Parts: sequence; structure tokens; C-alpha cells
Amino acid sequence: MPSPQLAPLVAPGRLREFFAPRSIAVVGASDTSGWARFVAAGSKAAGFGGPLIPVHPVHSTVWGQPAVPSLRDLAEPVDLAFIMAPADAVEGVLDDAAVAGVRNVIVLASGYREVGDQGRAQEDRLIARAAGHGITLLGPNCLGFVNAHARAAPFALTVPPSLPAGPVGIALQSGALGGVVLAFAHAHAIGVSTLATMGNEAMIATTDVLEYLVEDEATRVICLFLEQISDPVRFAAAAERAGRAGKPVVVLKVGASQAGRQAALAHTGAVAGDDAVVGAVLRQLNVIRVTSLEELLCTGALLGYGRRPAGRRMGVVTTSGGACDLIADRATAEAIEIPPFAPETEAAITPHVPPFAAVRNPIDVTGYFLANRRTAALTAVDHVLDAVVADPGIDFVLFTGLTLPDARPDDEALAGMLAERARWLGERIASAPVPVIPVGHTCVNLSRYGRELLDANGIHVLPGIDLGMTALGHALRWLENRADPDAEARGVHRDAGRAGGTGDAGNAGLVRRAGPGVGAADPGEPWSEAAARDLLASSGVPVVPGELVNSADDAVAAARRLGLPVVLKVCSAQIAHKSDIGGVAVGPGTEEEIRAAYARVCAAGEAVPGARIEGVLVSPMRTGGVELIAGVTADPTFGPVLAVGLGGVWVEVLRDTSLRMLPVDPREVKRMLAELRGSPLLTGGRGGRPVDLDALAEVICLVGDTAVRLDGSLRALEVNPLWADGNRIEALDVLVVTSGRPGRVGSG
Amino acid sequence: MPSPQLAPLVAPGRLREFFAPRSIAVVGASDTSGWARFVAAGSKAAGFGGPLIPVHPVHSTVWGQPAVPSLRDLAEPVDLAFIMAPADAVEGVLDDAAVAGVRNVIVLASGYREVGDQGRAQEDRLIARAAGHGITLLGPNCLGFVNAHARAAPFALTVPPSLPAGPVGIALQSGALGGVVLAFAHAHAIGVSTLATMGNEAMIATTDVLEYLVEDEATRVICLFLEQISDPVRFAAAAERAGRAGKPVVVLKVGASQAGRQAALAHTGAVAGDDAVVGAVLRQLNVIRVTSLEELLCTGALLGYGRRPAGRRMGVVTTSGGACDLIADRATAEAIEIPPFAPETEAAITPHVPPFAAVRNPIDVTGYFLANRRTAALTAVDHVLDAVVADPGIDFVLFTGLTLPDARPDDEALAGMLAERARWLGERIASAPVPVIPVGHTCVNLSRYGRELLDANGIHVLPGIDLGMTALGHALRWLENRADPDAEARGVHRDAGRAGGTGDAGNAGLVRRAGPGVGAADPGEPWSEAAARDLLASSGVPVVPGELVNSADDAVAAARRLGLPVVLKVCSAQIAHKSDIGGVAVGPGTEEEIRAAYARVCAAGEAVPGARIEGVLVSPMRTGGVELIAGVTADPTFGPVLAVGLGGVWVEVLRDTSLRMLPVDPREVKRMLAELRGSPLLTGGRGGRPVDLDALAEVICLVGDTAVRLDGSLRALEVNPLWADGNRIEALDVLVVTSGRPGRVGSG
Repeated sequence: MPSPQLAPLVAPGRLREFFAPRSIAVVGASDTSGWARFVAAGSKAAGFGGPLIPVHPVHSTVWGQPAVPSLRDLAEPVDLAFIMAPADAVEGVLDDAAVAGVRNVIVLASGYREVGDQGRAQEDRLIARAAGHGITLLGPNCLGFVNAHARAAPFALTVPPSLPAGPVGIALQSGALGGVVLAFAHAHAIGVSTLATMGNEAMIATTDVLEYLVEDEATRVICLFLEQISDPVRFAAAAERAGRAGKPVVVLKVGASQAGRQAALAHTGAVAGDDAVVGAVLRQLNVIRVTSLEELLCTGALLGYGRRPAGRRMGVVTTSGGACDLIADRATAEAIEIPPFAPETEAAITPHVPPFAAVRNPIDVTGYFLANRRTAALTAVDHVLDAVVADPGIDFVLFTGLTLPDARPDDEALAGMLAERARWLGERIASAPVPVIPVGHTCVNLSRYGRELLDANGIHVLPGIDLGMTALGHALRWLENRADPDAEARGVHRDAGRAGGTGDAGNAGLVRRAGPGVGAADPGEPWSEAAARDLLASSGVPVVPGELVNSADDAVAAARRLGLPVVLKVCSAQIAHKSDIGGVAVGPGTEEEIRAAYARVCAAGEAVPGARIEGVLVSPMRTGGVELIAGVTADPTFGPVLAVGLGGVWVEVLRDTSLRMLPVDPREVKRMLAELRGSPLLTGGRGGRPVDLDALAEVICLVGDTAVRLDGSLRALEVNPLWADGNRIEALDVLVVTSGRPGRVGSG
Repeated sequence: MPSPQLAPLVAPGRLREFFAPRSIAVVGASDTSGWARFVAAGSKAAGFGGPLIPVHPVHSTVWGQPAVPSLRDLAEPVDLAFIMAPADAVEGVLDDAAVAGVRNVIVLASGYREVGDQGRAQEDRLIARAAGHGITLLGPNCLGFVNAHARAAPFALTVPPSLPAGPVGIALQSGALGGVVLAFAHAHAIGVSTLATMGNEAMIATTDVLEYLVEDEATRVICLFLEQISDPVRFAAAAERAGRAGKPVVVLKVGASQAGRQAALAHTGAVAGDDAVVGAVLRQLNVIRVTSLEELLCTGALLGYGRRPAGRRMGVVTTSGGACDLIADRATAEAIEIPPFAPETEAAITPHVPPFAAVRNPIDVTGYFLANRRTAALTAVDHVLDAVVADPGIDFVLFTGLTLPDARPDDEALAGMLAERARWLGERIASAPVPVIPVGHTCVNLSRYGRELLDANGIHVLPGIDLGMTALGHALRWLENRADPDAEARGVHRDAGRAGGTGDAGNAGLVRRAGPGVGAADPGEPWSEAAARDLLASSGVPVVPGELVNSADDAVAAARRLGLPVVLKVCSAQIAHKSDIGGVAVGPGTEEEIRAAYARVCAAGEAVPGARIEGVLVSPMRTGGVELIAGVTADPTFGPVLAVGLGGVWVEVLRDTSLRMLPVDPREVKRMLAELRGSPLLTGGRGGRPVDLDALAEVICLVGDTAVRLDGSLRALEVNPLWADGNRIEALDVLVVTSGRPGRVGSG
């Protein structure tokens, strides 16, 4: 959360001004500065219309134009100063900016927080100075931004020629990738609204840019390259606002690997969270997660351009059987349907394909139209598209028929036909009853000719079948999750009392950070099982009946009351893993067996050095049914995280668990259960009795709530096994570890 | 297998001639034929030096040059005729070709086998005619080929300008994708040796081209787009020859989805095999399988250009922390190591990076070198590369530092420095102790300037981090499997007696097709369990002891001999699934229980209409240990296929099985077991006793051998469960289904 002092400097309204400067000064510009040359060239490529003023203490002319020695010497304030001065000089430049009335700066210099404590102190001073002057600052250690709509490019890397403006907003926690991203976007005619490189995020954070992009009218989709999510509460709130605004957020989050984490560490000075938790959180927020830059931009392009499909039924129009095969395989992988065409569609297609072509979905019109020289603007594939968009049984059409030559043909007649064809296609796509998604065969650049022809007719072509189908899968899942009527009721809107909220106030409860001073250094203390059972029971979690006894006689009496056979467990706060030391006896069913078991588990407990034995817990043995695990751990970034899984091999060998930030509601828990590979076992898949999923989800929610109520003291809370048989759900064993003293917590 | 008549026409030596014509006639060429125009333009783009003669019955000039009315009118024979005449006219053209002494033809026309029985008959006539004339024929229903080294391009789609010659041989079972593949190859400077579109493969089959490419000196790697593998025996033999020649085979096999299968069906008229079996067979043959055209060509490029790494230890040299993160994440996914640099490497790097840069692997040299105008050819990243290639602890270097401008800079000094840098890099890469793999950041085209500069210096850059890392993973697996000392001993070299072979003769046993007339229509007949047990036992498979009894008294007596408790199973050839009908009793341990169980399973069996009860099988009950499944089914394409898995949820819910074509040897079976997700259970992962994997693999091999000996009559042979406890391995239940009468088969 930005401090109250910083908040107004990074608010969306202020960033709207920041990202649309009409005049720019480049401090430290010289003819020998590579970075400054990029800014000058980029401004030209972006079509920047305002003054771009070099500022240099020594050089009186730069880029052949007059330079001023300091910002103080500007005739009038500029909207933005790009400060390329070395780190030691930056604070002085901020003073100059303040005097000159410059409200916005970019700081390029490195050597701050990313190099350690001294740099961190210098960065803190920098931000205090800027904030004191009321200056908004991007960086340090960043490469600036481009805003294609505002035609501004204070950006210290290459900007492609005639920077294309478009619907894709981008924020990158790696500055150097800014140039890479723009190059790919240019190659595939993916228009950018604002692209910002974030640097150290000392003042403007990625989440601030996310919030700005949510409000930015030119932006329809938001693509982020993230090394860290440093303020998950605000990130989650902003992601939700994006969803409500109909703007998908697409994230390429690196640091999944240990090796990746090491690289991310040194690069940004922040600790990356555990990747599985990141994945769960992003799914929970309906944020699309991708794994490559190409996928990031292609998904952004699909969701930024054109209309969005209403369902998964795809019509496919191609000029190649091979393309049909590739698309069909990828469709299966993405669970996209390719239903048969209606008879009237087939009838409308038939006249346009040769007699040997199979008329069906996916349709290959064949290359037969190449047999003769072209005499009409439209070809077979266009006529077939015209028929297919009208099919009543499809939600959208994938179209690979739009291959253009690399350059405008010398043959004027042919060039004219191509222009006419593009015009017709643009109009047909716009007027079609369902969205049409044109896609190239592979990821090759559009030519300048192709780009201009398509752009003039409002057509956007995705970069290849493979990336296009991957993006389609993402888009359809995003749309479905968004359309989900339960979405509003999800955990992200819940307060601890599960009353449900609708505004941002509810989000404050989304992520509870582990309390101050909490870290790996403090592993916490386990509670005795009796205390842990009481805690769960007080939250309403059904716990298997049990009596704590201190003699074999009492054990026998308790067993008779509880029902035979029973389970005996030695009970001690100092013994977290009772089975491992022989402290559990399963199944004694006679008095003799119970007495022997009592003696055995007591002896096992007493053999543990330092263990204070509270007694032996006697419970009825449960058989049949399904055993699950429901556990909560405190993630250093995201706070309490709930893990749910089936017991046995599912967790031990397959690591088959589903994760969520807490709190969750029962609907979300049912989604978690459905995600498990072992979920068929819950629904009676192996011949067992189906588990009452509503009852199970309710209990798991209560487990989560119990953990949330422990707040910052929570280290771990685990019910294992959580036993489910039909509608009988019971916690059979409970482990609670907290940083404070074991005991009751308020049930507030 | 080509018939003896066809074999000489498609042998590698003959295809070498076929694919390198020095003179070409285009039959059916006219100024209005789109296809013919492509051939003319493509020949120009490829630099074809020989005569290209239009043949047309009516037009006397085509493309402004004289045409002849028929091949018979040629002054001298051409090496190849590209026949674009309609299907009905093609046979006449073949007669003309024969008279004219033309030995090689391409047939473009569609309307043959792919349209049904009539077309199939016409195709058969076509091939008989060609063979009768001694003519080699590619197609019909194909678009020709290009041979960049021979500068020949009888190819009816666009050929990119100055077709790049290179190491990648390509065969495509989709003609239309030929143009797409060449466009992508051109965009990324991936040079092609021969690219052939296969069409209906009426004479030249994909495997023939594969064999030609294995022998073709210009080809270092072979990329295939497959809709079907129609002759798996020959394909496997050719793939193996490729491996022995050090030429990786990379396959994009479509039809994985049911929908995909439908598309492949209609397109090629062939039934695609089950995709999981295809995957297993390709793995068995060390054929690389990819899922997109981009991945196909990028993997081909990596293996076709440059040197091959000796191991998985990767040095990474970049100019961006973001690139480091992306590479590290992908490296983890591909199990590629990024070890720390040696101290001497770090010392050599340090002077070339700014003080705030972290010196480690992966190394980001930062964009600091952009601060000042360039005054030297080499930049920081080049100096760092120079140091890293000498590191003693790495096997290869991934290098993202080679970003070139889109066009030659106007600044002559800069252009000169870039040229000098490229020269230095080319030399350093060639002389480096380990392979250097240059990779771009994303999949964008190389510019013409970049392509020429790199080509002149022998540098090849892979199209992006994502594709590059995927290709690296493929390449390393291929190299490791190839280097595997056991590879020569694998199933592909085994004859049925497992004596081991080294030549192609052994391959004849690789795939046994199901016998003639075998199909889904004949589900086969199950054997009685007693007969099935005898069959397995006669092959040496340890089968749990058992006695077939016909009275309760005998059951009790047998149980006492075998050891209590026991399992009783009703035995009838008509009852394949005994448990389902209550025909199995597990665990009776007293005389009373055995008598009751006997009565129960007999009654259950007698209640099955038409079941002839042979008796009740009494076996000792096995507890503990691990239960597996080993089953063989007859795949319509690949013959007997062995499936191995763990029992219970592993197969029922997770479908966790490993597949292989038969025969296999014990080493291969151990690989199968290691592939299982549940494999930790075999090695004592859940606290159980480790299974003797050698003993288990030996038994599973014997199960496979038993199935192979059933030859064409096999429908299914399944041991389920196959029980393993330490070194005790036993078949507890056996099912055999054959098309013929149950009974003993010869033991080979």
C-alpha cells in the first residue's frame, strides 16, 4: 500500500498525466549517450509532437538542437523529465525539477535497492525527496515507457517504426524486455496502449500501473511480466477491478524454478513467493497465466482485438487439411468443440469447394482455387467463411484463409483484388453474427504491406495456430470464469464472517500477511492434540469423539462408551508425529487388546526425551469412506493458504493438492475438490459411496476459518486425515502450530 | 513394404536422382494456371539452372517461352515431369513420358484414393501404369518438392526468395503446409535440404523419403509432418538407421484427438492409430515428437546447425535479467542445469559488467553498454561470452546477446563494427571449447540484413527463448537416448528369442501386424482361467499356485495344501469378469468359511446364462506387496502393444500406464516402470518393501513374449493383478482372449 504521502502521486488520475506528457526533457542527454539517442529516435518513431529538450551541464547543443544546462534553465516547465544522470546526481536533478515546476520524472540510474542496504538507503532518500517536491517518479533502474496513443516514448530502447497504437496495456518488471516486447508486438501488428518498465518500483508500483490501465480508455487488456507480487492485497483488488471492467489481466510470472528465483532475487531485490501458491492465487483472481512472451502478447491480442466468443463451439475454415488436423488436435487439448455444421451451412459451402473436398467442420477448401489465375477478389475460402459465420450451432469461427504476399504485387489488377478482398473480409468479420478469429499458420512477421492492408480494414491476425489456440483456451476460460454467477460470491469478496461483501472493503480480508517478525526462523510450537481438537470443535468442525484417559481402566471404559474397535493415541504437545514413534494403536477391539495398546503407546510416548504426556486419547475407529487432508500454512507473501487433497498416495506420491488463499467459501472449496486428480474417488468413482460434497466443503471452510482466526500467530493447521463417508465428515487427527502460546483464541 | 516391382523405383539411390532434376517439364502449364506460375516463380527463387519446359496441348507459348504440345514432342528427355493435368488425363501423360524417356513424375491431381473406392481403383491403375513404364511417381494429390542444394523447385506453392539451402530435410503428409513450412524456415534462416510433399503416397511413401534423407549428405536432421504411419515396420527400421547415422528424426504427428482423427481420415484415407501407442512407439525409436510447426522447425534447426552439447550443464549469457528469469524457469522445466561458474570464469567476467551487476550463472551483463555511443565492435556481452565458453563446468552456452538492427545502419562506422562483431562471434563460436547456441528473445523474423550477416559468418540464431528451450530439451533427450549404451540392446533389435540382433533382419520382428481379417468385428473368445494360467506358466511366468476343484471337500483339502487363507474363483471360459458377478471369494480361512465360499461362488457362476463351469480355482491369498497390471492388446497399426501399470487408482482413475510395441527386453521394461507416476511405490516410496525390479521386469517380459507367441490370434492378454513383494512376483489372475480356439500354442 503506498503511504498516504505517496498515494496521490501514484493514483490513476495522476498517472494518466504522467503517461501522457506533451513535453519532455532528457537530463544527461548528449550525442554520445546511447540511451538518449534511443529516446530521440523513439520519440520520432512514436510521432511525438511536443518539444524534446536535451539537458546537459556541458554540451550546449545535442542532436543538433540547443540544450539547456539544467532543468532550472527551461523557459517553461516540461511535463516530464527523463533523468539519465548517474545515481549520485539524481537527487540534485529532483531539486532542479521542483524549481522548474516539473511534476513527473523517470530515473534510469541503477545502483539503488538492488545492490544492498546502502543502495536501499539511497533509494529511500530519493523517494522522500521526490515526494517532498510532489514529484511522481518511475524507477529508478528502469527504461521509461511508451504511450502509443499519446505518441510519447520516453523509452531508452528501440521503438519500432510507426509505433502501432492499440488495446494492449503492458507493465514489465524487466526493463530490457520492453524492447523485446515492442519488437514482437510490431512484428505481429499488436497495438500497444501504454507500455511501462517498472524498475525498482520505488514510488510507482506495478499495481499502480495496473490500476491506471484499468481506468485507461485506450486499454482493453492488460499484460504483465512479473518477477514478484509485492503487495498482493492491492494487486488482488486491482485485478478484480480489471475483471469488473471487462479487462482481462494476463500475467507472465517468472521465478517458478529455484534457479529462476535466484535470478529474480538478485535482479529485483525481492523474494519470489512459492510458485504453486502464485498459480493458485492467480486462478482465484481469474488472472490468465502464461509461460512465454509470445503467449503473453498473443493472448493480449486475442482479447484486445475483436469480439469475444460466447461459447466453446468453434467453426474452422482453412485451406489445408494439415491445418485442420493441427487445429483439431489443439482444440481437443483446450477442450474446444468443433461441432458438425448445420445442413444449410453444408449446402451453402458445397458450391465453393471441389467435388473431392469433404464438406464438414473443420473445413479444408483445398488449394484448388490456385488452379487458375485469379479473376475475382474473393476466393473459395472467403465464400465458405461467409457461409460458416451464419451457422446456428457455432460460437465463433477460426479462419486461416488470410495469407497475404510479402509485398504489394506488381500486378495492379491483383493488388486491386487483394485490397478489395481485405475490404470485404473486414466488413464481413464486422457484420458476422459470431466473432471471426483470423490466425496465421505459424509465428512469422506480418509484412509491412500486410500490416497496412489489415490495419486499414480493421482485421487482426493472430501469430500462428499454436499460439492462437493457446490464447483461445485462455480467453474462453477467462470468459467462463467471469460469466460464472458464483464469481461475485467468491472468497475474494468474503470477510471473515462469510457474510459476503460487494465492494473493495471486503478485499481487505483477502490476504492476511503473516504477522510482523514472522519468518522461517520461528518454526512455532505445536499444540497438544487435545487443545487442537478443542480449537477445531469450537469452530464447528466435526471432530471424531475422543476421551483423554490416564489409565488402562479408563481407556477400556472410554472405549466401551465410544464403541469398538478404537484407536489409541498418546497425547503430548511435544510429539507432533505420533505414528512415527509408535504412539498410535489402531483397531484394538477387546479389553485385553485395549490394555496392551494403552501400555504400548504410553511406553512409546515416555521414551521420547522431554515429552510431557497428557494422557492417551481414545477414539472410535473409522473404516471405509475416503481420507482427505485439509491444511493451512502461512505463506510469506499471501498469508494463510489452504491446501486440500486426498490422503495416501495422492498427496505423498502425486502431490495432488489444490491451493487457495484464505478465506474461501464452500463453493470455492468445491472447485478445489473438483481440481483434484483423485476427485473421482469422492464421487464414487471406484465403487465407493459418493461423498456429500456440500457437507465436506462446509467443513473444510470451517477449517480455513479456524486458521484465519489464528491470524499472525498461525504456522500450520492440518486436519489429516479428514474422514468422509457419505455425509459423515470427521476430523480424525489435528495438528496446530502457532508462534504464540497454545490456548484458546477468540471466536470473533 | 513396396512390392518387388516398386522397390527399385523408390530406393534411396533412385530418389537421389528423382529429387535432383536438371531439367523439368510442366505438363498442363498455361499462363492462367496458378500452380504452374508457382513452379516458374519457385524455380527462379531456387536458382534453378536447367530448362523448365511448359507442355500444353493448345498453347504454343507459356510464360513467354515456347511450349510443346506433349512430352513426346520434347527434343530430348527431361529429368522430371510435373503433371498438372486433370486425373483423367494423367495416365495418357504417363504413356507420353515413357515414350519421351522421362523417368520421374510428380502428379498434382486430386480425386484418387481420398475420394473412395472408385478413386482407389484409378490410383491403382495409375501406379501400375507408372511401374510398367519404370517411372518413379510422387503423389498424386501432392504439390511437389524443393531441393535447395540441387536448386530445384518443382513446387506448386510459394518458394521464398533465395531459397536457403541447409541441413534440414523435410517430408510432409500435408502438401499445403509445404508453403507454410518454407515461409517459417525462410523467416528464421532455417536452411532446407529437400522438402517433399507426399500426397497419397501411391508409390513414393514417406518412409522412402525418410530413407533417402538418411542417405542424403546434405541432410543432418529430418523433420516429418505425419497424419499416419502406414508401414510401421519399415518406418521403425528407417528411423533406426537415421539414429545410427546421427540424424535425429523429429515428428509432428497429428490425429491425437478424435476430432483430429476424423480430419486425418477424410484427408488421407487412412486410419490414424491410437495416439498413446504412437507416442510410445516414437519414444521407443528415439524419434523426437513435437506439437507445432514452429517446434518442428526450431528443433530441426538446433540439431541441424552447430555442434551438439555433451551434457545438460548450461551457461547462460544475456543482456537482461528478465531473459535470465525466463531461461531459468524453462531450464527447470526441461531438467537443464545452470551450475555456478568457476571462480576463474567469474574473475574473467567481472571487468566487463558494471559494479551493480551480479556475476553468476545465468549472467545478465545489463544494458549498461548502451550508456555511451559505441566505439568498439565488441560489447560487454561478447567479452562475457568469451569468458564463459572457457568455463570448465559447463557443457554448452545459451547466448541471447545477438540482437541486430532490422536494416544495415546508415552510419558506416556502426555498420562496420557490426560486421566485425559478427565475424568475431562466428569465429569464437566455431573455436569455443563447448557449443554456443545463439537464441533470439522471441519468435520474430530475422531481417534480410541480419540473415545475410549471420549466414556469412556461419551463425544460426534460434527463434526465441521459448521455442529454443523446448528444442534444447528435445535435443538433450535425443542425445542421451542415443548415447545410452543399452540402446543397441533394445526391443527394436530383438528377435522373439531375445537373442539380440544387430542388423535390419532383427527389425522384422519389431512390429507384428495383427493377422489378416482381424478387426473390431471379431472380439475374440476368452480362455478359461485354467487354460490361461497354463499358457502363462508354460512361458515361465510365475503363476500363483492353484487347484481346480469340483467339490467343497476338495476345496478344503486344496486350501490346506496351499496354505490359509485362500481365494476361491469360479472358473468358466464364459465368465471373463468373475468379481462382477460375485464369483470370487477372498480370504476364507477356516473350513466352514471355505465351504460357504465354495457354495457362494458356484451359485454365482451357475446363475450366468450359458456359462459352462469348469470348477472352482483355489489359490493362497497374497497380502502386502504391490499389485500391478501387465496387459497386451493388438493395435491395428503396431501389432501387440504392452501396457504396464500399478493397480487400483493408478490405472482406474489416473490411467497411469506405460506402453511399448512388443517385443521388449527387461531393460526396456524397467524404463517403462520408471515412467509410471506411481513408480515410487515400487521402490519403497510409501514405506513398503522395495520390489526387485529386475525380477519384475523379467516376468513382464515373459508376459509380452507369451502374447507375441499367440501372433495374429491375439486379442488381449492381461495379468491383473501381477503381485510383487520384494523378489516374489506372481500372476494372481490371468485373462487371455484370442480369435482362434483356446488351447496351447507352440513355444516358438
